[in-house]
Amino acid sequence: MKNKKVIAIVSGGLDSTVMLYWLLKIKKVTPIVLSFNYNQRHKKELGCIKQIASELKLQHKIIKLPISDIVNSSALINKTKKLPKEHYTHENQKITVVANRNMIMLSIAVAYAENLGIKKVYYAAHKNDESIYLDCRKKFVEQLSKATQLATYNKVKVIAPFVNKYKSDLVKIGNQLKVPFEKTMSCYEGRKKACGLCATCQERIEAFIKNNLIDPIEYE
Amino acid sequence: MKNKKVIAIVSGGLDSTVMLYWLLKIKKVTPIVLSFNYNQRHKKELGCIKQIASELKLQHKIIKLPISDIVNSSALINKTKKLPKEHYTHENQKITVVANRNMIMLSIAVAYAENLGIKKVYYAAHKNDESIYLDCRKKFVEQLSKATQLATYNKVKVIAPFVNKYKSDLVKIGNQLKVPFEKTMSCYEGRKKACGLCATCQERIEAFIKNNLIDPIEYE
Repeated sequence: MKNKKVIAIVSGGLDSTVMLYWLLKIKKVTPIVLSFNYNQRHKKELGCIKQIASELKLQHKIIKLPISDIVNSSALINKTKKLPKEHYTHENQKITVVANRNMIMLSIAVAYAENLGIKKVYYAAHKNDESIYLDCRKKFVEQLSKATQLATYNKVKVIAPFVNKYKSDLVKIGNQLKVPFEKTMSCYEGRKKACGLCATCQERIEAFIKNNLIDPIEYE
Repeated sequence: MKNKKVIAIVSGGLDSTVMLYWLLKIKKVTPIVLSFNYNQRHKKELGCIKQIASELKLQHKIIKLPISDIVNSSALINKTKKLPKEHYTHENQKITVVANRNMIMLSIAVAYAENLGIKKVYYAAHKNDESIYLDCRKKFVEQLSKATQLATYNKVKVIAPFVNKYKSDLVKIGNQLKVPFEKTMSCYEGRKKACGLCATCQERIEAFIKNNLIDPIEYE
């Protein structure tokens, strides 16, 4: 089963890039990389994954999504809203939720898989995300995967291999697999350097500290 | 609960237009109409729903979907493929399947609902569709609705009210509700007049005959 093809949704952030390396080096499959431009504030991340996929010589596709047309309540899309500086567990982080974003991405990835005769779609939801991002929870993944298997002739599955792991576990795995962390970006602000203050920056910094590692990216 | 808002996915075809009238007149809710331009061969249907929604004074949005970028195997999108002239039950009708199309549309409609605080998304899957269109089956609708309720803070449900009905039942309901059938289009070919030969034309014609009614649209 070596070199079996799968679809991997990868944003250019730390989590999904670790998943990409994990698929290549541990699962020994060939990921076709799918990224989404939904007019996110931090769409600079798409440049990161473009470079990473190119260096790994992987097929890569960026799909433009019409989400910002219909969902304007999220600070990840609507730049008139301020990004909160608390942890994900804080109520005010709800403003960073893009309604049903992952189901939209996954449903397109499943269509792509079905069209290519591929049976598995991976995305990098993990346990730090689940407090506010409902579409990162294990129950959601399981239910959606049942639906995608019913909707496709190939019985395409949705798999979130890190759904029971924390971001610090991902840094550990990534470090073992020699993931080029310096080429990833996590910050929601999307400026040249990471802000160091938004929830995703805070969690990234803490995940490195927990592993006694130094995050190689630059902070403001 | 009168005038409660719901989202209705309506293509401009007969089935979804009947559902639109049924929502307005029987369920007494106010549908926000959502249509999708996925570069379908028969995108002339979008002009039909534009007119119908305008006459009913309903809010209407057409969303452009990047499906044809990633799914090129369907004769509904790929014009180099011929549309088969058999019924939906025939194996060769599989070429008209657009992989995971309904889940993509529904996931976007659910995002729209969540953003507006609306709890119900309707689409017009019915029993004639289910032989080849897996995403029109009752089991799929039930599973997907479980997933969308988990993915949203509003617990948005997906509802296919006609999933146990045949197209002939829809013509019967539409006739009772005075649906302007002449303003709808079903033909996959998307030419000026309906071809009368593709599966959806055949089923439409038979559904009118079963009801002792005359289909008011023109056929080639």
